[in-house]
Order: sequence, then C-alpha cells, then structure tokens
Amino acid sequence: MQQFGVIGLSVMGKNLALNVKNHGYSVSGFSIDKPEVDALAKYEDKNLKPTYTWEEFVNSLEKPRKILIQIMAGKPVDETLQKLLPLLDKGDILIDGGNSNFHDTNRRYKEMEKHGIHFIGMGVSGGEEGALNGPALMPGGDEKAYEEVAPILEAMAAKTPTGQPCVGYIGPAGSGHYVKMVHNGIEYGIMQIISEVYDVLRTVGHYSNDEMSEIFKEWNKGALQAYLIEITSKVLKQKDDLTDDHIIDHILNEASYKGTGNWMLEDAIRLGAPITVIAEAVLARFMSKATLRNDPEPKIDPEKAPKDLVDQLAKALYLAMAVSYGQGFEQLTMAAKAYNWRLHYSTIAQNWEAGCIIRSQMLHDIKFAYNADKDLPNLFKAPFFDKVKKENIGALRDVVKIAADAGVPTPTLSAALNYLESIFNPRLPQNIIQGQRDYFGAHTYQRNDRPGTFHTEWYEEK
Amino acid sequence: MQQFGVIGLSVMGKNLALNVKNHGYSVSGFSIDKPEVDALAKYEDKNLKPTYTWEEFVNSLEKPRKILIQIMAGKPVDETLQKLLPLLDKGDILIDGGNSNFHDTNRRYKEMEKHGIHFIGMGVSGGEEGALNGPALMPGGDEKAYEEVAPILEAMAAKTPTGQPCVGYIGPAGSGHYVKMVHNGIEYGIMQIISEVYDVLRTVGHYSNDEMSEIFKEWNKGALQAYLIEITSKVLKQKDDLTDDHIIDHILNEASYKGTGNWMLEDAIRLGAPITVIAEAVLARFMSKATLRNDPEPKIDPEKAPKDLVDQLAKALYLAMAVSYGQGFEQLTMAAKAYNWRLHYSTIAQNWEAGCIIRSQMLHDIKFAYNADKDLPNLFKAPFFDKVKKENIGALRDVVKIAADAGVPTPTLSAALNYLESIFNPRLPQNIIQGQRDYFGAHTYQRNDRPGTFHTEWYEEK
Repeated sequence: MQQFGVIGLSVMGKNLALNVKNHGYSVSGFSIDKPEVDALAKYEDKNLKPTYTWEEFVNSLEKPRKILIQIMAGKPVDETLQKLLPLLDKGDILIDGGNSNFHDTNRRYKEMEKHGIHFIGMGVSGGEEGALNGPALMPGGDEKAYEEVAPILEAMAAKTPTGQPCVGYIGPAGSGHYVKMVHNGIEYGIMQIISEVYDVLRTVGHYSNDEMSEIFKEWNKGALQAYLIEITSKVLKQKDDLTDDHIIDHILNEASYKGTGNWMLEDAIRLGAPITVIAEAVLARFMSKATLRNDPEPKIDPEKAPKDLVDQLAKALYLAMAVSYGQGFEQLTMAAKAYNWRLHYSTIAQNWEAGCIIRSQMLHDIKFAYNADKDLPNLFKAPFFDKVKKENIGALRDVVKIAADAGVPTPTLSAALNYLESIFNPRLPQNIIQGQRDYFGAHTYQRNDRPGTFHTEWYEEK
Repeated sequence: MQQFGVIGLSVMGKNLALNVKNHGYSVSGFSIDKPEVDALAKYEDKNLKPTYTWEEFVNSLEKPRKILIQIMAGKPVDETLQKLLPLLDKGDILIDGGNSNFHDTNRRYKEMEKHGIHFIGMGVSGGEEGALNGPALMPGGDEKAYEEVAPILEAMAAKTPTGQPCVGYIGPAGSGHYVKMVHNGIEYGIMQIISEVYDVLRTVGHYSNDEMSEIFKEWNKGALQAYLIEITSKVLKQKDDLTDDHIIDHILNEASYKGTGNWMLEDAIRLGAPITVIAEAVLARFMSKATLRNDPEPKIDPEKAPKDLVDQLAKALYLAMAVSYGQGFEQLTMAAKAYNWRLHYSTIAQNWEAGCIIRSQMLHDIKFAYNADKDLPNLFKAPFFDKVKKENIGALRDVVKIAADAGVPTPTLSAALNYLESIFNPRLPQNIIQGQRDYFGAHTYQRNDRPGTFHTEWYEEK
C-alpha cells in the first residue's frame, strides 16, 4: 500500500508526486487525463504507482488515506470531492493544493467534516521548480489531521537557510488558502515596487539594461536579498531571440493577473484593512491595460540625476518592501480576528522564507519580530522595523520627490510613504470628513475629549 | 385619485412627498410605521392623502400607478415588493429611491418585469433638505416607464444654474443605482482630498481654523465652487457648544462609512477600473480607524512654508477633484461596456450639477466635455481638462513634495498625481512584471513589436 496519493498530474501535481517519492515515501498518482498518468508512468518504481481509475487509486492507499488534490481551482475541486466521497473511509485526509478561494475552502472543510473526512486547504508556492525541489506550503484545516501528514509535508517543503521546513500548521478551515492569497498580494506589491524603481533608474538615472541588471544583482547580495530582486537582475540581462536587443525592451508593458491579488483587496474591503500598497499594485495592473499611451516620452537631463540615486533607491525599495509585507501581516491580523482564527505569524513568515516567490532575507527578520512578540499589532512596532523605517524614510521621501519632478508614476512607493506617515499618526485629518458628514447628512460624530455621539446644529446649515 | 404615491415616510420619504405636492401633483403617502403616517397627516389637503393600509394606499392611486419606495435598502425593499405585487396591475410603475446595491436592482428589475410591473431604480442625493427643495435624481430601468414619470421627477428635481432639471434617464436595469454608487465614490474622493489640503494648510502653513475657513470661502467663489468646499468653510468656522474652541478641533478623526464607496471599489476590481483616488479615499477611512496614534505631533517651522502655498493648494485641489470625477466617469464607461448599458454621460453630469453632495462648477464643464464628445474615452482627453491638467500639474507635484517633506500623508493627492502620470503614459514599467511572471511561472507575455504570445527560456532559469 502507498503512503500518499496525488490527484492531478499536470506539471505541479507530477512534480509534487516526484518530490514525495524522492524523499522516500511511496506515492500513487491519478489523473482523469490519461496521458498525464502515462507521463508519470515513466518514473514508475516500487515507490511510485501510476493509477488509471478512481477506485484503483483510492484502493492503492494505506489508511487513513492521505490524498493531495492538485488541480484547477473552482468547480473541478468540487467534482473531484464528489467522485472521491463514496470511495473514502472516515478519517481519510484530503489536501487541496490548488489556488482555491478561501471561501470555497471554508465551505468544503465543513462539508467534508460532515462525512468524517479531514479537509486541509493548502497554499503551495514555488512554481514547477519549487514543486519538485521544495515548495513553500501553507496548510490550514484540521490540526490533528495536519499532524498526520506533517512528516511528509516537512520532507517535501523547501528549507530555510537555517534548515527549518517551509511548512507549518497555519490555522483552521480556509486559513491556509487565505495565507496563500495574502502571499500573492504581497507578491503584487513587491513586483510593482520593483517596476517603479526600474522606471526611476532608467528615466532619471539613464542606466542601461545591463547596468540595471548589475544594480539588482548587487542589491541581491545584501539586505535586499530576495528572489524577486534576483530574477529582476536576470530578466534585465536577458537578450532577445528575435532581435539584437534586450528582451525587456520588447515585452509589452501590460501586466496580467489571475485574481488572487483582487481577492485580497476584496477581503480588505470587507475587513477595513488599509493595505494601500497592495491595492495600488492591483490597480496599477489595471492601469497598465487602460493607459491611452499618447503622451510623448519624457526627456530628463541626465545631469539632473542625484549622485546618490542608486543608494536612495535601494533604501526606498527596502522600506517599501517592508511595508508590503507589513500590510500583508496587518490583513492577516484583522482576518484572524474577524474569522476567529488563531494564526501563528512567525510560522507564516517561516513558511515564506524559502521556496516561494516572496522569499527574502527580510522574512527572516519578520519571523524574529513575531517570535519576540506574537501579538505585534503592526510590523513597524517591532524595534527592528521601527529602525528600518527611521533609517530609510528620508530616502523614500526623496525618491517620491525625484519621481514627481521627473513625471514618473510611483503608485506603490507613494502609497508606502503615505502608509508610514499615517499608521502611527495622532492627527490624521478625518475630523474634516466627520464634520462634513454631520453637516450634510446629520451622520453624527464622536469627540476626542469625551465619550458619546454628537450632532451639531450648524449655524449656516439651511 | 392621486397622481403619485410614496411608501416610507421617514425624513427622506416625507420630504419627497411634500416636494411632489408642492409642485402641484396629488400624492398619497403610506408607511408600515403608523406614527410616520400621522406625522404626514399634519400636511393633509386635497393634494396630500395619508393612508394607513397597503390596500388603501394602492387603491388611492390612478392607473398606471406611480409609486416611490423610499425605505432602507436591502431586505425591506424585497418585502415591500412582495406586499405590493398582489395589489398592483400590469403597467404600474415602481421606483426604488433608496441606496440599493445595483446587483439587487438588476434582480428586482427582472423579477418585476415578469409580472408586467415596470421597475425603476433611482439614486437620490441631497439629504433631507434636498429631498424637500430639490434633490439630484438618477433613475435607471424601463425607459418608457421613465417617460411616464418624467414630468413629476423633473418638477421635483433640483435645477442647474441654467435652469435644467437634475434628472434624466440614466439607462437600463440597475444603472441608476450604479450611477448613485459612483456619485458616492467621487464624494469619498473629494472629501479625502479636501481633508489632505486642510492638513497641509494647518501643518505646513500654520493657518488657524478661521483663516482656513476664509480660504475655503474664497475658493468657493471661483473655479473651485463646490458644495463640499462651501461646507468645509462652514465646518471650520463653527464654534463648539461644550468648549470655547472650534468644533473641528474636537471632532474625532475617524471617518465612518456606510458602504457605497466600498461597493464602487468592489466593482472596480471586477471591471479592472484604475480608480486609484477613490480606492485611496476608501482605504484612508479604514486607516483612520486603524492608526495606532503614537507618533509625536510634527513640528514644522512656519518660516519654511512656501509663500504661494495657498495658490499651489488651490491648483492641486482643483486638479485632484477633476481626477476624482474623471475616475468616476472612467468606471461608468467601463461598466457601460461590461453590462451592456448605453449611458449618457452629459445627462449624468447634469443630474449631478445641483441638488447633490458633489455638485460643483466643474460638473458644468464635464457636461460640456461629454456634450462635445459623447464617446470621450477619458475626461482628460477633452481639451478643457487637458488644459486643466497642464496648468495645474506643476502645483500638484509641488504639493506632494511639500507634504512629503513635512511628513503629511497625502494618499489621494499622490494617487491623483500618479494617475495623471500614468493614464497617457506610453512607457509604464509593467514590462518588468510580465518578465518576472514569465520567469517564475512561465505565464508568457506579449511583445510590443509583433503579435502573438511568447515565452522565454531564461538562461539562468534553473
């Protein structure tokens, strides 16, 4: 009998199955798409069994069965559950490793619970390469069931630089997929921040693609070390197959998206989470598809570039990345409260430290911040990140000003700055808004000097 | 028999009923809340009939019946429709004047259509005073049915400075409530922009409340003329009843919200509409409730304030307000396409020109812009607003820079600037994002020099 089963054998499922087998566990694989099973069969040995029917697959697994479902999110997952249910026994464990919406996972968790089946919704990040060699895993659902699959998941997962596995129990119901959604929102934020820094480098600094590639490569050696910084260096260096140019100059500047960033923003609206950097990153992708493109190209005198532009950008980029993470954790904190989940933020940071797209040196510092204070109300309340803010906010202000002068749009860099200027601000100006609302709609207001709800009879009201 | 009926007689419904009566039409009023009917009965005469049962109300109206439902949005509207249905005849016209979500209005429109009842979802803005003396009305639904009620609605509605009624047929199904939702989103944008300008005035310019009140009063006499500017002047001048201070200094700086701004942002996400100013305004209200308030108050040297600060702020405010309107119309344009509505943008601008919260001189110019080109792809493509942008963007840049130096957060002013720097930009930097996505997830990209979909085998990929 096999120890683990995988349903869905396209590139992610196949690589995850091989990953499990490579760690010494026996695996069965199944897909409703026969050629996918045939492709897996090339790797067949005592630890890897291709199967061709639902029954053959389920019956090949030892009990309680441990089954990873790695297929397209949405309806196919529900169809798969319906196919499996009559074949399973109470106590079996299903893991949905797709990019499911956490609302669906909440629902499926409850439905499966009724049948005595343990359901784990698990975010998986790392792409096809990560799936084979070590992804970041974010499992949420039944904690006892997680403990049963933990040895296999820990073996599969990426390892942090200090050797810890990038997997750990996230929390109940849909919380694993929620954390994956937040991971993707942070990813949107950091990618947009990097694109703005690139725009300032080329437009204000007049750097060539190769020079920019070197700048990102250098940055990746220090505190800015991050997978997205590393690959930006490589993307900028790459030559085109079809012309003599760098490929970056021929890639159309319209950013596509598949929805997880949108989901995060939708839930931020429900929660009241002020995740401005991530919101601006989502809207900047919309903007890239809406732009009318008829302004002339800007002409900036190269002599005007500040001498320390690269250093200023490094600091601004570092601080803005910290805001992107910080807003992600802020939304997690608000979701935990709203959905009654107990989340372990240092575990989440550790899950992201390797294997996934947003992995970075900074996540190590975030893990420490939440280890030191598991109820940290805001990342920038931690001494380390308070210092990061103080040391770099001057540079972020300067970059926003330089970009404003050059006509370079910086929606996420500006949002990061405005967030930092707001989150500890004792005198935000929304008293004006409450005054206006009471004036035109008698919506009432609260006072800053005594409790209660007040309405003013504005003298010139009528 | 009465010509018009109103269901729901709290302050809005009562005032709308009196408004209709004051224009020479006969009205019946009904509420399930008897004291509300008693209150209306004080105004009873041949043109105003209070009624106490569903039957009495419906039977008092001439056919086809014209009934305005002015009650709390949500379930009460559905319950009212269920009560009315058995009592109505085919061809009767129901108007929902509440703040209903446009999805509900789409659904109700179809349900009523099945029964041969015409359903009009109508946005109403202007508060209680507007309801009595002239609100802005945004009716969507069956066009023929609209024509039957148009004389009464035109009589009730506010009038523009040139005497045109602030009502006109918006479009099919839920489009009237959609337009009201966008009205409210623009309102969020302009209110937040004003609060940021106030913050720069007090923090950088060190102006007193009375001085700021005068500044807004002066602004309201020129191109910046707008209801929200006018009432800001009055809010700043108002003395407190409980202390010797100005009330503005005792209003708690936490902005409340009821959801229509959130709805607009939710639909922007669905449509891919880059309405950054409105998004930042929504999130700034969240921020005002999330802020931890432990920074010290900023100390800015009054000598450092630029001599022309007030003029710069006037220009920045004017341009940022234009962006708020422009983004509203941009979302309407995208919604019209997505939902297959034919919208008349100049009619919408005229509907908003008087009676409602966002009324302003600028809406007159917007109406002209859409009169000149009903398919205007973006407000800033109109010659007038192109000029507005060119004449004021320097000041907006300067204000963003001044605020950055002073540590004053300007989420919507920054968003307005970044929007203007993006919407016609031929070289947004999202080519970096597409390069990154193809690198880590083989998501493919398009090129700017030939058609098709491409994937690069990145040399250092593995």
